[in-house]
Amino acid sequence: MDNKLMLMIPGPTPVPEQVLLAMAKHPMGHRSGDFSEIMAEVTQNLKWLHQTQNDVLILTASGTGAMEAGIINFLSPGDRILVGCNGKFGDRWAEVGQAYGLQVEKITAEWGKPLDTEQFREKLETDTEKTIKAVIVTHSETSTGVLNDLETINRSVKAHGETLIMVDTVTSLGAVNVPVDEWGLDVVGSGSQKGYMIPPGLGFVSVSSKAWQAYATAKLPRYYLDLGKYKKDAAKNTTPFTPPVNMFFGLQVALRMMQAEGLENIFARHQRLTAATRAAVKALGLPLLAPDNAASPAITSVIPDTIDAEKVRSVMKKRFDIALAGGQDHLKGKIFRIGHLGFVCDRDILAAISALEASLLELGYDRFSPGAGVSAAAKVIANA
Amino acid sequence: MDNKLMLMIPGPTPVPEQVLLAMAKHPMGHRSGDFSEIMAEVTQNLKWLHQTQNDVLILTASGTGAMEAGIINFLSPGDRILVGCNGKFGDRWAEVGQAYGLQVEKITAEWGKPLDTEQFREKLETDTEKTIKAVIVTHSETSTGVLNDLETINRSVKAHGETLIMVDTVTSLGAVNVPVDEWGLDVVGSGSQKGYMIPPGLGFVSVSSKAWQAYATAKLPRYYLDLGKYKKDAAKNTTPFTPPVNMFFGLQVALRMMQAEGLENIFARHQRLTAATRAAVKALGLPLLAPDNAASPAITSVIPDTIDAEKVRSVMKKRFDIALAGGQDHLKGKIFRIGHLGFVCDRDILAAISALEASLLELGYDRFSPGAGVSAAAKVIANA
Repeated sequence: MDNKLMLMIPGPTPVPEQVLLAMAKHPMGHRSGDFSEIMAEVTQNLKWLHQTQNDVLILTASGTGAMEAGIINFLSPGDRILVGCNGKFGDRWAEVGQAYGLQVEKITAEWGKPLDTEQFREKLETDTEKTIKAVIVTHSETSTGVLNDLETINRSVKAHGETLIMVDTVTSLGAVNVPVDEWGLDVVGSGSQKGYMIPPGLGFVSVSSKAWQAYATAKLPRYYLDLGKYKKDAAKNTTPFTPPVNMFFGLQVALRMMQAEGLENIFARHQRLTAATRAAVKALGLPLLAPDNAASPAITSVIPDTIDAEKVRSVMKKRFDIALAGGQDHLKGKIFRIGHLGFVCDRDILAAISALEASLLELGYDRFSPGAGVSAAAKVIANA
Repeated sequence: MDNKLMLMIPGPTPVPEQVLLAMAKHPMGHRSGDFSEIMAEVTQNLKWLHQTQNDVLILTASGTGAMEAGIINFLSPGDRILVGCNGKFGDRWAEVGQAYGLQVEKITAEWGKPLDTEQFREKLETDTEKTIKAVIVTHSETSTGVLNDLETINRSVKAHGETLIMVDTVTSLGAVNVPVDEWGLDVVGSGSQKGYMIPPGLGFVSVSSKAWQAYATAKLPRYYLDLGKYKKDAAKNTTPFTPPVNMFFGLQVALRMMQAEGLENIFARHQRLTAATRAAVKALGLPLLAPDNAASPAITSVIPDTIDAEKVRSVMKKRFDIALAGGQDHLKGKIFRIGHLGFVCDRDILAAISALEASLLELGYDRFSPGAGVSAAAKVIANA
């Protein structure tokens, strides 16, 4: 049967029908009053979502483009930066820094383990000359399902006083609490195909006044990703370059849905989905990659032990039309990743876990009592 | 009445219903076999549209992002480039060059006049040291409706032998003949919300093997816009960063529609729409900004003479729900621009001209026989 695909990957995530239908409207001119109204509304609602009074700028770009903009607008060639690297995306921000001639120092942890906050503290405390210009942290590492302890790392950043904190919140924003103003996060990047519940195509960057001060003297070259242009035009409810108006139609609807649900409810839902998924996987006797105290609210990585992870994904897709994500780079074949981010409800987890049980049995894995996984998930949901 | 908007601006252009509905489908995973199939198909059809065997790469970006990628991937700091500047977009590519520390030499013409091909010939002929690394030309200057003589300028480029030719075809590709391989165009940038008949959100860059040779030693920094990454992944029918999958659904449908119509028919249609529009405007006694021999196939700029151009646009919008574009920068209020690019048929021109006549009368402009404009357009259409 065609067209029964269920996306349980960490992006693109499922998209509500009202968002899809909004995107199917005829485009409007992006220099029109009608578009300015949408721009004003979504900008306001993005600030709500980010819990900030900072600028939140909208780019036609993937999350990587947004993060690159967030890095290169505030730094100059040779600037020293610390980058937390415990997965594919942390590594990517180090690569961006290297591509632009920054002096990149990595703080690494094994993929699947959280970053050691003490290493950040030590580096920052010993930087009495204040040569560290930025600290880049991937909050939820999509490649592993690890949630790094941003709050603690950020405390060391604040104690340092001068360095900027730049955060990849691609799979944490709209899933777990990211209080941008309360924590004083300077640069926060994200992408539309995640907690936002819309398809890929938009990137978002929030920028603090401290970061704008750095912008004034930052010398890395940029034009399309020059956030100053976006800030200037956003003040007039417009954009420097043609925006993807149909994506904005979808964004408008999705942000209204998020406001109707409320931030606390959104976070609680993601916490419940995460807890249910993890309880189920444990009940199936399968190891989890990330520890409980560093579990991403967006994605759960499972080590299927004796079974090739790609086989689990293949059976899930063929028999149940459920798309799971595979492992990336050296984790390919070793893990599969269950996405539970965005427009995902309790029923989706029950369906996915039930299908996972059936797939494991089909693959000859029988080290669990049939029903154990789905029962464990149901118990979490019932008690939440 | 709501929702009867008719877009007659040079982008976003009208979008066919089947494209809109394709975009309203649920997203799929971008690392899936199903997406790879779409990627393979659209890449092949983009080559057909570009009349090339070169790589045609797809970016999540506006046309400006695509053009910036086309410039910065093949040059190094201090490189000397010639940029044709006779409108907002030519000026923009000069700004991009300056932002990246290139040695930019502008060849300028008054807005509304075509670039002087002789000036390119002279500059290139006298460059016996071969210090000019690239020549950037905006084919159809969207801000004025001027079609620059790319073919002649390119002959001087080819006579030079070493410099790369980089072309902004944002409002010419899919409207007028741009034979990339026949002319040997090295870098060709475009955007989705134009001749492609889909909403904004995708940028395209075709890259010749000569340009890839330059890439190998080019030193300007880039990451998200690094076309080498796109080329490497396109060979595997994938993308380096999450692509806007719903935009790809629309692109797939639109390219099939373009193939069904055929390039010759598409070009003839745009020529007919342009000729009909220009004949009508002349019959209304209004001056055209661009001369007949340099008329863009995408857009016609009108100087409404004694009337404020913004008033014409305002009445057209209020009374007839037709969106026309205004003038940009110093031409604001002096011209209005009628878009006739993409999913536009003969009927649309008749409707727009009829409404324009009525609007002019409402504004007290009566230096034409009622019906003269629409009759002139009809005559061109009937005789085409």
